[in-house]
Amino acid sequence: MTTSHQPPGHIVLTSHPRGRGQKPRPIDWGASTPAARGPIVGSLTEPQRRNVIGAHNGSYGFFRALAVAAGTLDATHKPDLADTHPAVPIGPHPQWTEPNKIVSLDPWGHVAAEVFADDIRQGLDIRPTIAVTKAYLHVPELKDALAAGRLEADGKILKANGEAACTKIAVEPVWHLPSVAARFGIDENHLRRTLFSHSGGMFPELVTRDDLHVFLPPIGGATVYLFGDVEAIGDPARPVACRVHDECNGSDVFGSDICTCRPYLTHGIEVCLETAQAGGAGLIVYNRKEGRGLGEVTKFLVYNARKRHKDGDTAANYFARTECVAGVQDVRFQELMPDVLHWLGVTRIDRFVSMSDMKYEPLVRQGIEVAERVAIPDDLVPADARVEIDAKKAAGYWTPEPVASDVDLAAVKGRDWEA
Amino acid sequence: MTTSHQPPGHIVLTSHPRGRGQKPRPIDWGASTPAARGPIVGSLTEPQRRNVIGAHNGSYGFFRALAVAAGTLDATHKPDLADTHPAVPIGPHPQWTEPNKIVSLDPWGHVAAEVFADDIRQGLDIRPTIAVTKAYLHVPELKDALAAGRLEADGKILKANGEAACTKIAVEPVWHLPSVAARFGIDENHLRRTLFSHSGGMFPELVTRDDLHVFLPPIGGATVYLFGDVEAIGDPARPVACRVHDECNGSDVFGSDICTCRPYLTHGIEVCLETAQAGGAGLIVYNRKEGRGLGEVTKFLVYNARKRHKDGDTAANYFARTECVAGVQDVRFQELMPDVLHWLGVTRIDRFVSMSDMKYEPLVRQGIEVAERVAIPDDLVPADARVEIDAKKAAGYWTPEPVASDVDLAAVKGRDWEA
Repeated sequence: MTTSHQPPGHIVLTSHPRGRGQKPRPIDWGASTPAARGPIVGSLTEPQRRNVIGAHNGSYGFFRALAVAAGTLDATHKPDLADTHPAVPIGPHPQWTEPNKIVSLDPWGHVAAEVFADDIRQGLDIRPTIAVTKAYLHVPELKDALAAGRLEADGKILKANGEAACTKIAVEPVWHLPSVAARFGIDENHLRRTLFSHSGGMFPELVTRDDLHVFLPPIGGATVYLFGDVEAIGDPARPVACRVHDECNGSDVFGSDICTCRPYLTHGIEVCLETAQAGGAGLIVYNRKEGRGLGEVTKFLVYNARKRHKDGDTAANYFARTECVAGVQDVRFQELMPDVLHWLGVTRIDRFVSMSDMKYEPLVRQGIEVAERVAIPDDLVPADARVEIDAKKAAGYWTPEPVASDVDLAAVKGRDWEA
Repeated sequence: MTTSHQPPGHIVLTSHPRGRGQKPRPIDWGASTPAARGPIVGSLTEPQRRNVIGAHNGSYGFFRALAVAAGTLDATHKPDLADTHPAVPIGPHPQWTEPNKIVSLDPWGHVAAEVFADDIRQGLDIRPTIAVTKAYLHVPELKDALAAGRLEADGKILKANGEAACTKIAVEPVWHLPSVAARFGIDENHLRRTLFSHSGGMFPELVTRDDLHVFLPPIGGATVYLFGDVEAIGDPARPVACRVHDECNGSDVFGSDICTCRPYLTHGIEVCLETAQAGGAGLIVYNRKEGRGLGEVTKFLVYNARKRHKDGDTAANYFARTECVAGVQDVRFQELMPDVLHWLGVTRIDRFVSMSDMKYEPLVRQGIEVAERVAIPDDLVPADARVEIDAKKAAGYWTPEPVASDVDLAAVKGRDWEA
């Protein structure tokens, strides 16, 4: 990496543990205090002081590099973090220091500017990896819920005009590689080498810097929408509702009728508001994992293959088409998903708004109790999404109703494009 | 990069032009035919045959590497692209082969499986970087527009139940580095070295492989929602409407009232539908550039700093807060944005649904005529978003009304959190 001490033409292709310059500040992942854990130093203003692999801002870190290249950003700029601290206090919770409980985010990421204030004053460029703010939401479906009497306004959590108050939390991925490898049950060295090789040679430090255990991967993170009182979380006497929702831009934003994503999301918000109004807390966890982590190009190619199948777009062929194109049905890796709930202090979910065993099982494996599972109401399933939901039920999604047989699945057909 | 010919333990940190193995197939960017241009070979099933830097699927390529590491994906899997071809034909258009017209996507990306069918039959792993499908949208605001008489159902483009028919296109970034550098007016070598250094050492091949001119960057791409007849584009006798919308998940999905993003987006869809019903085409270009390309953590930190400012959250301080935290107001780089419109054959936009000069000027510089600019109707601006829209107008956003003075800007205050 270039540093201000090197001639501008000079570039170092990768660094090594025994390289020149001061040794990076150690990170003792899971240590009992922030001071003992040590700060995450991922900024590029002083590359020689970094103690992680990768860069901040997940998949947006690349735009910073482009801004420096284009000359619009001063490469030495350090953020002024005045007044940016959390709008609502979160933690500390026991989960933050339990071994292997949180492996893919920094539990101190939202208070980095406070707990490492002295280091920052002394010039160390430490950046928050989590931001906690407040928001007021206008979701059209909530107006319908009020009109239909499914929800009632209370004037604070939900107003009569459909406005919902929430705490909004953005979480950037911060991976402790030894713990992530353990979570997947694979060898850390294998994880590092494969992430390097099969990403097209991204971040050689994954291979060369075995002294650096923390990685800021260039992927999207999570956003939490918290309704009700954050204090209710972890209080056995108060209910917690949760939907873990994986990004589906075509449905979430544009209401595409080929899947149940937005209807299930807005139903989840309704359940969260009910639970908040009952004195509890409701959590929507929105993960940036478009198209099951395969991306939108793959997703649309699969839609085409489904619609053109000789038997039509049937539930029976739903998963097969994805595997033909992508080689795998899903790469969302829900094993890491419970981390954000551990960070919030969640130990029990009273109402889990999902039918997915891929989401349910990792939660239970990670020690989070799930009392009730809430299916999407049938009248919220778009006509063309019947294919998806029946295929998922037959593949083992939890459902209160009887599961369709193979024969039924062949009969469940989506719309013809030309219809 | 590891290849099947190397022992499993062996790893190559970066490649070099004069490395072992066959020379990569050359890419003649902008050549007049696909055969002359050559295929984009970015897949990792046979690393020695790659002729680009980076990996497919933008920011989701990393999940593929994780799937291989976790053992859920066979690293040698090649996609079965049967039946995945475009649902609607796009091009070829003259813009595809004009020098420096398209620099950040592959104009043949949607027909890669067809135009390079022989290479694929011979075992070359070529993947589409663009997918074209169809969708039927249920956007709640369109029902309101029908009820209010702002839109009328025609039974095909827009049904009485609010369902809108569209062509949906996902576009993955494919950068021709010499042309991208030229677009930014910077030296290619400077661009390559800075992207490498200031991304934390991502892709050393940016520095070592000056023989490879094409880069698949690990960032999000664009999704196009096309309403009406694709044939109308480029026909001087038929109108084209367009909104270029940059991702704002908090508003687009959750209706957060601090900005105008979703209201302006749904207004854009209305204008697109009107134009389609008038025999033209409407285009929504949705770019994955959350928080002006700075990401959601930075965005939420800025919200906190704005709300806590001693003078309150005023339009006068709107941009200043972002610069304090991020060091720059915006890293969306609209210079590359017109490429997808060139690819679609757009030469004139009759109704451009945006007030942003940052979007308007690159379009005009890139030779796209813009007839009318459509402001967001005042009654669609959420109360708390008045701060944003007035700050933007004062900063030079196009507006049909008089621009607020500095004094007014200090008076335009957003809601207090506790309100």
